[in-house]
Amino acid sequence: MPTPDLYAVIMAGGSGTRFWPASRASRPKQFLPIAGAAPMIAETWKRLEGLVRPEHVLVVTAESQAQLVRECLPGLAPENLLAEPLARNTAPCVALAAFEIRRRAPDAVQIVLPADHVIRPAEAFRRTLAAAAREAAASGALLTFGIRPTHPATGYGYVETGEQMHAVDGIPVHRVVRFVEKPDRARAEEFLAQGSFLWNSGIFVWSTSAILEAVREHVPAVHAGLERVEAGAPLGEEYARFASEPVDVAILERAANVRTMPIEYEWNDVGSWAALPEVAPADEHGNWPALSGGARLVTVEAEGCVAYAEAGEVLALVGVKDLVVVRAGNATLVCPRDRAQDVKRIVEELRGSAPEFL
Amino acid sequence: MPTPDLYAVIMAGGSGTRFWPASRASRPKQFLPIAGAAPMIAETWKRLEGLVRPEHVLVVTAESQAQLVRECLPGLAPENLLAEPLARNTAPCVALAAFEIRRRAPDAVQIVLPADHVIRPAEAFRRTLAAAAREAAASGALLTFGIRPTHPATGYGYVETGEQMHAVDGIPVHRVVRFVEKPDRARAEEFLAQGSFLWNSGIFVWSTSAILEAVREHVPAVHAGLERVEAGAPLGEEYARFASEPVDVAILERAANVRTMPIEYEWNDVGSWAALPEVAPADEHGNWPALSGGARLVTVEAEGCVAYAEAGEVLALVGVKDLVVVRAGNATLVCPRDRAQDVKRIVEELRGSAPEFL
Repeated sequence: MPTPDLYAVIMAGGSGTRFWPASRASRPKQFLPIAGAAPMIAETWKRLEGLVRPEHVLVVTAESQAQLVRECLPGLAPENLLAEPLARNTAPCVALAAFEIRRRAPDAVQIVLPADHVIRPAEAFRRTLAAAAREAAASGALLTFGIRPTHPATGYGYVETGEQMHAVDGIPVHRVVRFVEKPDRARAEEFLAQGSFLWNSGIFVWSTSAILEAVREHVPAVHAGLERVEAGAPLGEEYARFASEPVDVAILERAANVRTMPIEYEWNDVGSWAALPEVAPADEHGNWPALSGGARLVTVEAEGCVAYAEAGEVLALVGVKDLVVVRAGNATLVCPRDRAQDVKRIVEELRGSAPEFL
Repeated sequence: MPTPDLYAVIMAGGSGTRFWPASRASRPKQFLPIAGAAPMIAETWKRLEGLVRPEHVLVVTAESQAQLVRECLPGLAPENLLAEPLARNTAPCVALAAFEIRRRAPDAVQIVLPADHVIRPAEAFRRTLAAAAREAAASGALLTFGIRPTHPATGYGYVETGEQMHAVDGIPVHRVVRFVEKPDRARAEEFLAQGSFLWNSGIFVWSTSAILEAVREHVPAVHAGLERVEAGAPLGEEYARFASEPVDVAILERAANVRTMPIEYEWNDVGSWAALPEVAPADEHGNWPALSGGARLVTVEAEGCVAYAEAGEVLALVGVKDLVVVRAGNATLVCPRDRAQDVKRIVEELRGSAPEFL
């Protein structure tokens, strides 16, 4: 049974370029079938089914991406699509959603989560969310989810956990000592050895009153601006004045009532093409095809390759190893898997010389 | 001054797959700008300018490719386009052109050459052709051009030259001892060391009467069939009965009056993607772009790559070396340069499973 006053906020405003050329300014990663048959945002929506009523799922996105959201989420009620007039990172996004939910259900508990993560199994994730919702309702705490590190990742922020306060449904609830920005390799290894550091998932659960109180305290300009919007001021004018800050930095690092619960199953933020082998099964030749309907991968002695193509396309790989090969729109990318982060250098180059390919 | 009764026959019937996915069943290599800004057949046409009058240039092609020939060669007179109803290799092609030229100019000397070779400089090539035309007119011999080998190539047939008979314009004319099919590596090394073997260029010069006499003697069924066509029989029915044989094997290997003249300058039959670096200049990063209008190659620490793309496309290469990357139509190919010959394995695979990509 869905919990009646549990809401979810899917944050879908990202405009990353790490999945170029599949992700474009006009179609970022969350709208692509990067790690499954459906666009990532549709997989995220589906992951909440059975826990959150569809009419309680809100999506916050950029105005320019509203139509894409509608296409990917046919079950989303029109009034549940909140379009941000400007990109201001996640702090204003979280506040905007919290104001909207207060208007509808002031006592609601909210799950806030990015549109473009892979989390499996969904059933285990929903159990954790349900437990966190109970904890948030009971304690008024701001809950974050942390992932037990499996390797010294330098691409994630970390949460240092303090003592375990108690457990809900067998899931421990820890105090948070501090948040740490993406560390270098040496520090990441320390964190891994130390044992009390979790990766910061960017997934949160809190009561509407708790997050609004935190917004008022830690980003008062945003709180005041959204109050003026409630009183009739244009959202665009207020947004233009907001600082662009992530909710972790602007609110959670400053708040006293933050707690964290560990996710012990598969979580991946799929940060680049190199992450595909972590979230997709290899084919019988040891390659990772990510193919839209009707696309084909044909290989002759090729292995370890990530191969992405749109419908109606064929990718032919002969005698190559550990490459990323992406065919999308009017662009083709070829790079070794371990250099997938350098896609941004291509994007920078094109920004200056040939923006028609972005 | 163009020689008045010198004709040229451009053989453009090939349907090779070694340049897949740029070359397709519907647009083979000779119609692509593989090694220059213009399609190879247009470069071949241009190479004859100043030596052969445009109205004396004939093109033999497949019926299905007639429209492509017209597009690539706006200067070609409609009656100079000979369409073969069926592909029967070069022996019937040569005979068909010879019958047509006899009808127009029985005393003409003919240059017969493939549409898809690179030969530079054109001026030197024309000098050789003019000398060969004089020799053919004077002697009635069947002249082939041979290329002095620069390495022990296993991809070409060879001509073993006998004694030098004389020279025309300083270009030696040799007797031919024999033709040799593509040799293995050890034999190719012997040929190279031996010094009297030339690569068989597939470029010929002969008088109309000499080649027709050779057709009558060595492929009498073709000669008889084309006589019936002249008398009104349908070309398609006669072609269907012809054996599919190359002119080298069917006629030249059997003829007594064959002579060869060496080409001492650049010649390349551009047999696969791997040959592009031999015929195209590298860019400032050491890659070989073959880009149609408006296509772009963007690289980050990539070198030694052959990169082919159609108009309006971008190829982005990061940190890769010595690859062939081809984007054409609905297909993308990635393979190491030294495995370009394995493209045929992809084509075979697709023939069985997904012919829509051929």
